[in-house]
Amino acid sequence: MIKKVVTLGEIMLRLSTQDHKRFVQSETFDATYGGAEANVAAAMCNYGLQGTFITKVPDNAIGQSAINHLRRFGVDTQFIVKGGNRLGIYFLEPGASLRASQVIYDRAGSSIVDFSIDEFDIDAVLEGAQWFHTSGITPALSNQAAALTESVLKAAKAKGITTSIDINYRKKIWSKEKAAEVLGRICQHVDVCIGADTTLGFEPKGNDVVDGRITIAGFKDIFKQMKEKFGFKFIATSLRESHSASDNSFSALVYDGTEFHVTKKYDVRIVDRVGTGDSFASGLIYGLVTGMSTQDTAEFAVAASVIKHTIPGDLNHASLNEVLDLMKGEGSVRVQR
Amino acid sequence: MIKKVVTLGEIMLRLSTQDHKRFVQSETFDATYGGAEANVAAAMCNYGLQGTFITKVPDNAIGQSAINHLRRFGVDTQFIVKGGNRLGIYFLEPGASLRASQVIYDRAGSSIVDFSIDEFDIDAVLEGAQWFHTSGITPALSNQAAALTESVLKAAKAKGITTSIDINYRKKIWSKEKAAEVLGRICQHVDVCIGADTTLGFEPKGNDVVDGRITIAGFKDIFKQMKEKFGFKFIATSLRESHSASDNSFSALVYDGTEFHVTKKYDVRIVDRVGTGDSFASGLIYGLVTGMSTQDTAEFAVAASVIKHTIPGDLNHASLNEVLDLMKGEGSVRVQR
Amino acid sequence: MIKKVVTLGEIMLRLSTQDHKRFVQSETFDATYGGAEANVAAAMCNYGLQGTFITKVPDNAIGQSAINHLRRFGVDTQFIVKGGNRLGIYFLEPGASLRASQVIYDRAGSSIVDFSIDEFDIDAVLEGAQWFHTSGITPALSNQAAALTESVLKAAKAKGITTSIDINYRKKIWSKEKAAEVLGRICQHVDVCIGADTTLGFEPKGNDVVDGRITIAGFKDIFKQMKEKFGFKFIATSLRESHSASDNSFSALVYDGTEFHVTKKYDVRIVDRVGTGDSFASGLIYGLVTGMSTQDTAEFAVAASVIKHTIPGDLNHASLNEVLDLMKGEGSVRVQR
Amino acid sequence: MIKKVVTLGEIMLRLSTQDHKRFVQSETFDATYGGAEANVAAAMCNYGLQGTFITKVPDNAIGQSAINHLRRFGVDTQFIVKGGNRLGIYFLEPGASLRASQVIYDRAGSSIVDFSIDEFDIDAVLEGAQWFHTSGITPALSNQAAALTESVLKAAKAKGITTSIDINYRKKIWSKEKAAEVLGRICQHVDVCIGADTTLGFEPKGNDVVDGRITIAGFKDIFKQMKEKFGFKFIATSLRESHSASDNSFSALVYDGTEFHVTKKYDVRIVDRVGTGDSFASGLIYGLVTGMSTQDTAEFAVAASVIKHTIPGDLNHASLNEVLDLMKGEGSVRVQR
Amino acid sequence: MIKKVVTLGEIMLRLSTQDHKRFVQSETFDATYGGAEANVAAAMCNYGLQGTFITKVPDNAIGQSAINHLRRFGVDTQFIVKGGNRLGIYFLEPGASLRASQVIYDRAGSSIVDFSIDEFDIDAVLEGAQWFHTSGITPALSNQAAALTESVLKAAKAKGITTSIDINYRKKIWSKEKAAEVLGRICQHVDVCIGADTTLGFEPKGNDVVDGRITIAGFKDIFKQMKEKFGFKFIATSLRESHSASDNSFSALVYDGTEFHVTKKYDVRIVDRVGTGDSFASGLIYGLVTGMSTQDTAEFAVAASVIKHTIPGDLNHASLNEVLDLMKGEGSVRVQR
Amino acid sequence: MIKKVVTLGEIMLRLSTQDHKRFVQSETFDATYGGAEANVAAAMCNYGLQGTFITKVPDNAIGQSAINHLRRFGVDTQFIVKGGNRLGIYFLEPGASLRASQVIYDRAGSSIVDFSIDEFDIDAVLEGAQWFHTSGITPALSNQAAALTESVLKAAKAKGITTSIDINYRKKIWSKEKAAEVLGRICQHVDVCIGADTTLGFEPKGNDVVDGRITIAGFKDIFKQMKEKFGFKFIATSLRESHSASDNSFSALVYDGTEFHVTKKYDVRIVDRVGTGDSFASGLIYGLVTGMSTQDTAEFAVAASVIKHTIPGDLNHASLNEVLDLMKGEGSVRVQR
Repeated sequence: MIKKVVTLGEIMLRLSTQDHKRFVQSETFDATYGGAEANVAAAMCNYGLQGTFITKVPDNAIGQSAINHLRRFGVDTQFIVKGGNRLGIYFLEPGASLRASQVIYDRAGSSIVDFSIDEFDIDAVLEGAQWFHTSGITPALSNQAAALTESVLKAAKAKGITTSIDINYRKKIWSKEKAAEVLGRICQHVDVCIGADTTLGFEPKGNDVVDGRITIAGFKDIFKQMKEKFGFKFIATSLRESHSASDNSFSALVYDGTEFHVTKKYDVRIVDRVGTGDSFASGLIYGLVTGMSTQDTAEFAVAASVIKHTIPGDLNHASLNEVLDLMKGEGSVRVQR
Repeated sequence: MIKKVVTLGEIMLRLSTQDHKRFVQSETFDATYGGAEANVAAAMCNYGLQGTFITKVPDNAIGQSAINHLRRFGVDTQFIVKGGNRLGIYFLEPGASLRASQVIYDRAGSSIVDFSIDEFDIDAVLEGAQWFHTSGITPALSNQAAALTESVLKAAKAKGITTSIDINYRKKIWSKEKAAEVLGRICQHVDVCIGADTTLGFEPKGNDVVDGRITIAGFKDIFKQMKEKFGFKFIATSLRESHSASDNSFSALVYDGTEFHVTKKYDVRIVDRVGTGDSFASGLIYGLVTGMSTQDTAEFAVAASVIKHTIPGDLNHASLNEVLDLMKGEGSVRVQR
Repeated sequence: MIKKVVTLGEIMLRLSTQDHKRFVQSETFDATYGGAEANVAAAMCNYGLQGTFITKVPDNAIGQSAINHLRRFGVDTQFIVKGGNRLGIYFLEPGASLRASQVIYDRAGSSIVDFSIDEFDIDAVLEGAQWFHTSGITPALSNQAAALTESVLKAAKAKGITTSIDINYRKKIWSKEKAAEVLGRICQHVDVCIGADTTLGFEPKGNDVVDGRITIAGFKDIFKQMKEKFGFKFIATSLRESHSASDNSFSALVYDGTEFHVTKKYDVRIVDRVGTGDSFASGLIYGLVTGMSTQDTAEFAVAASVIKHTIPGDLNHASLNEVLDLMKGEGSVRVQR
Repeated sequence: MIKKVVTLGEIMLRLSTQDHKRFVQSETFDATYGGAEANVAAAMCNYGLQGTFITKVPDNAIGQSAINHLRRFGVDTQFIVKGGNRLGIYFLEPGASLRASQVIYDRAGSSIVDFSIDEFDIDAVLEGAQWFHTSGITPALSNQAAALTESVLKAAKAKGITTSIDINYRKKIWSKEKAAEVLGRICQHVDVCIGADTTLGFEPKGNDVVDGRITIAGFKDIFKQMKEKFGFKFIATSLRESHSASDNSFSALVYDGTEFHVTKKYDVRIVDRVGTGDSFASGLIYGLVTGMSTQDTAEFAVAASVIKHTIPGDLNHASLNEVLDLMKGEGSVRVQR
Repeated sequence: MIKKVVTLGEIMLRLSTQDHKRFVQSETFDATYGGAEANVAAAMCNYGLQGTFITKVPDNAIGQSAINHLRRFGVDTQFIVKGGNRLGIYFLEPGASLRASQVIYDRAGSSIVDFSIDEFDIDAVLEGAQWFHTSGITPALSNQAAALTESVLKAAKAKGITTSIDINYRKKIWSKEKAAEVLGRICQHVDVCIGADTTLGFEPKGNDVVDGRITIAGFKDIFKQMKEKFGFKFIATSLRESHSASDNSFSALVYDGTEFHVTKKYDVRIVDRVGTGDSFASGLIYGLVTGMSTQDTAEFAVAASVIKHTIPGDLNHASLNEVLDLMKGEGSVRVQR
Repeated sequence: MIKKVVTLGEIMLRLSTQDHKRFVQSETFDATYGGAEANVAAAMCNYGLQGTFITKVPDNAIGQSAINHLRRFGVDTQFIVKGGNRLGIYFLEPGASLRASQVIYDRAGSSIVDFSIDEFDIDAVLEGAQWFHTSGITPALSNQAAALTESVLKAAKAKGITTSIDINYRKKIWSKEKAAEVLGRICQHVDVCIGADTTLGFEPKGNDVVDGRITIAGFKDIFKQMKEKFGFKFIATSLRESHSASDNSFSALVYDGTEFHVTKKYDVRIVDRVGTGDSFASGLIYGLVTGMSTQDTAEFAVAASVIKHTIPGDLNHASLNEVLDLMKGEGSVRVQR
């Protein structure tokens, strides 16, 4: 039986400038579709699992295009609800060198903000699923979206399905205080937590912060607090060093409740930075749902994310074998011919 | 002194598919900016007048890009207010042959919907102006936008400035009933009315409608009713025959309160259909504000619109001489070299 | 229950020149995927039915891209077999005015040429289907492909499924003699025949041919012969007048075994000529499988094809309502806003 | 032996706007290379003859690119001289419908303006040639270019090579008076004259001009005067009706000194209008140099030009067979597959 | 009151190859407009000052496009004169790694070469200005352009306006000897000098040159000589290390007549190298005209230039805040969302 | 006399994805033409020699486009044979950072596989040649292609022409065993061997392999074995360190039968990796055929290859002077203006 992973969230139209142009220079936008949880569903399909995505999109050609984009890459879109007013949009201006990438959100009033669990058949959606995943972005969109997120998490837990959340704090959408309150409630129903910034209110000890950045020791401290408060079975964070908008180093720290694991660190040259966090989450879920060891799970997640940095768009079009090869150091960066 | 024409309305980001692709096929959008009244302001500049445009755009790079687009083509943008939540968007799928062009509006919640006359210096805006123009789209956007439209019209009238409106009924934005009510109120302050469909509640006599389309006799009948009710000094309508999405015939009927004038009819092959109505309005305003005869005004307006059909984007990049040449039949369609 | 239509054939990579360039000028190709029967499957999905497509593609990223393209537009691709050497390619140079479009086939040795009914579960493929469709191109590809076509037609007939073929004679692939022999054998298992050229060996009476083109009387004569020989229940042909590579007139003649029906004739300006025949076939199948009258079926098929002429690519991205509106004369070619 | 045709003239960088954009909207230009006589040389190669082109281009990458463009399509470029200051440029804004195409010349000071016959080996260039061709543009560029043109014509005549000129009057380069004087001198050395406008000072009788356009009778009158004054052996003019920038009708009148021949008239939809006159000249030269009859020569020239109207760029990428098929009415505008 | 900075110079059409193609491979050029002083005017507007640019462009659509480009980004273009023959062009082939960027100038005979101070109202141009800036390129274009430069510098000095020059020696335009003579005369009227190569004839001591490159000690030596000879109040030079065409290090040395200041050094990955020097000049002028300290001025100028390296085109679309953030080390290269 | 270098091999259509897209994301392909030996012929022309290329391409527009591509860049294509079924294709997905470039070959059944020495005039092809070059790819394509390769090598040797081969082992085409057998036979007729992997069966001593990569000592060992067995007069290999798909280091080891020479090592940032090996081979041939010293030959070859890494497409559009400048360290990576 193919494993089934269900994700819930918003899918947006992404409009990005071309050839490193700034917004004010652009007369054309590349258009694609993505969102934290949709990206995870697509990655699952890429790795050979069933990825089912649930959301609400407007009943027009733009909403249909979002569905088609996911369907193209294998996502099970049969449960997506049509209705509401508009598809959320985000404008992306990819940075370079010492100029950071810019995101302008234009997602207010999107179809998902008044999406309710009554609009779809939750039992059918979750039938046969091993895993349910969402992110901290979804409950940020509206009170109703937060209620929806909580309802689905509860339903999943009630069916014995493993649940995960990617914290993904976005300061342009909500405040830290509101996030801490809502996510604190939601995390009661979560088994696996990805992301360990201070959103949930946990603070590392003072000397575990260097130059405003949390050290590995600091993360370990936070992880322990998180486990204690929410009972998470698994906690992970990527450890990104942003040398510039073009060059990052990427590794991860994971905690299976017993031991901490740090992965290999890769230097990556960036083609597209967006979605690399979702690729990391996808890798973790894949590793855990298919029974990899903690270390392998972490290494797989990091390798998956590393490849995503080289692929344009939100989705990670890396194959299972490509990720495994990189993770095992068996891949080659020479031309394959 | 260069004549000054002030216009008020919404400017939107226009995202159109390329190469006749449908929305569901598109992975790139051409991005430009326009709107009924912004297009008129730009045309004024093209013809050598001062075009001043007043609107509200969000204080981000997308809003700035809209300003820049108008500024590039000479529009006086100094009074544009920055604030609100978002720039309205419209998605355009240009049709061809027997497939109609499609517009998907995504303009709810745009910055202009809560725009008030108190946010800018109306006296400065209107100083030295001979003409104020708006369209029936602006009051359709929100009650506040309707109030704004009425306030500015009143202010203009109080200063002895000629006022005009382009009815521009958009069924995707509001109902005929609501439109009739609001526009009926607004038209009290209007001198020149462009558009003569049944939006304002006037109906031609039964035998003045053929195959669902109003005849010239029918329009004359409506024009007389309109003059009687609102005291319009000048009423005009284009007479478009849409043979297909690629081929139209275009002429006009104008009424100066005394006589009716019908223009020459042109067969046009369409490159971009959007903004051709605004070009017609621009031509009328240009003719009237510079003192052309009624017939010349009408011919100028039609010729301007005919050229616009061949130019991509919302704006009409036809020069004064190009319009005059076509209107006088002195132009040539041979290569100019 | 949603109706299910199964189709069998080759899907190819289509590489077309841009902006009316000739092959020798081109340094970029637009890449999409299509083929007579794949196009029909996609159209079925567009109209709300289930379209299942069976073929064989190479197990590489090009083959996967072909699958993804169909999946994006809703086609059920679960039964597609991976193997063989390559995906067939066709190069397309779209013509204009008095320059004809050129096709260069590069499909020799493609995966489908050695595709056998033993490589997939025919019972699963046909389960629940009301209709099976293929074209005269598939048996032209190889003896084994011809055998496959015949086997699947037989299997479908044995299950009481309606079968159809689109003759689609391609002189660059095989001779008229070979075509007549193979298709003659295959047509024993066909209920609905689309296309009525002289491929199958039927000749109209001499005075039924004018300027090398068969008249309607000539087609009626051929249709009767075809019905007599093969027992077809339904025969249809489009009646295309190619005024130029840019302008065609399009109508159809259908025969339900009792009466002949001629449709409305449309003048179309061409954006993309390829796939318009497949759209006609798709319309016929849709009309028949959903129980439309003969005349409505024919009008639907013609209207569907007319819209396809305006859409780039092999697939017909016309919605059910768009086709119905055009067919009923209720559509409008004005901008929809 | 393959026939050899030598041409002399300027090759320019052509920068054209895309997608019907006007100059003021353009942020990208399509770049190609062409010029009246270069286009003729390339056409010769297309038809299987040897086309040798002589010109002077700057010794930089832009000059080299011009050479490469011709070389790509088979032109013998071995005698092209490198030197001078710059490659001439022309900016092209393709028109549509009732908007004419615009050309902005930026060719002042180009390398050819001080090109002298002493800079190359005229005997080597003309060795084995049957035909020498130039146009009325070349002598318009500078006095030295006029002297060069005359020198080469004389040299060709001295070797018994047939000479031709395409009058090609360009009002943006020189006055009618100057043109008449210079061309009058040059035409002493010309056998075949293409173009019969009033540049050379010949006027048709009054009633041979209708609506400012010369009638066929008027052209016949001019042709006779031209023959008498210059002793031309062959005179030809295309008869173009410019319905719009998108639609023309095209035919021709030729005079072999004995009889007048009028060709078939074609309605053409225009993809690229530039170079269609050069295609007509090329067709005439091909017909005459290969010994076609006068009528066939004219029909070939017209058919060649008709196809050129559908091909982007200055060069005519029509094959010999395509032209012959259209000329004989054996071509088809259906998809060739 | 908003500060006003006036600049004088040539604006050119820039035609650059795409996607790292070489000239000989290119069939499309990106078209934008720029020039040393125009770029400075645009940067002033970006930072919230008034940037007024004075130049002469041809009275055609290409000249108008240059004006529009500046106007789009806020430049005051009201004083630009129309006339002359052509807009100067420069072709740009962006390099990469160990292949240097190539520039081909095609600016001979451009409108500015015969531009005179009598063609515009110098008093109106300079009214209210705090600063006048030009570069060493303008006087290189022609003797008349040198005279113009000197006249405007004198007029500015007479009005008490601070004057600056960016030496910008271009070996493809003039010789070192001619440059030294002309610039030596012009620098009599200059307060702030940017650039300190050996153009002006100053040579550092022998051991202040390493591997052909001047050391900081060498620059200090030259600066002192420059101050002594011309009385410059402020001298600055960027210190660029060109590791490759893709990677540079960038810092600066400035001298306020009293002290020398060296800035922070940044490693930059290059998107577009052109205009980075103009960004440095712009930053210096901004800092000085708004009263920053010498060190802050230098740091601001360097940070501005660093961001420009990541932006395509000649203009620096960096906002004031972005430059300040980078300069203060408060910016982040993480995605801003 | 200009030196003449003849090469024999396959030319393919190369279809590459744009903007770092993966195959499954691509809807457009950049199309160019190349192949190991064609690339060498083009490089020879670039350096001022005569490059003659012999191959077989299909007699259609795709085959003609391949010829035109080479002709554009100066290659002598007069002996290319037309016939056979198809032009080989390779799909290229350029990698980035830690994602390797992917090549999908689609070259089975291409015209060259049944190409015979009897189809062209070998004496005419080789007349006046100093050098004949081919690669190990050509004999891999079919037994007949191997026979052809051997025949031409023999013919060249018989005429006293120097012969070279670039081993270029491609594991997707043939096995190591088959390669060793065929190449072993062919190398009997070769003077200069480029490439020194283990394809020919030579193994370095155990401690000459580190981490799976051969050391310089190991290569020296292999070179000596190669010289002994085949009598090669000159053996060379590039020494590539693939840090990632974006960054490589590049140098070379050459052996003139007496001494070993190691070149300078360059760090290169990659724009296009394909064809860099062919550039290395081209540089060696150029150096040897023009009489450079061994060390200079090696340095020239490496510098040529380094520049090629920055140029899109298969061909190396580096000029002789650019290579010489880089080789001598006299080049600059600053903007050339």
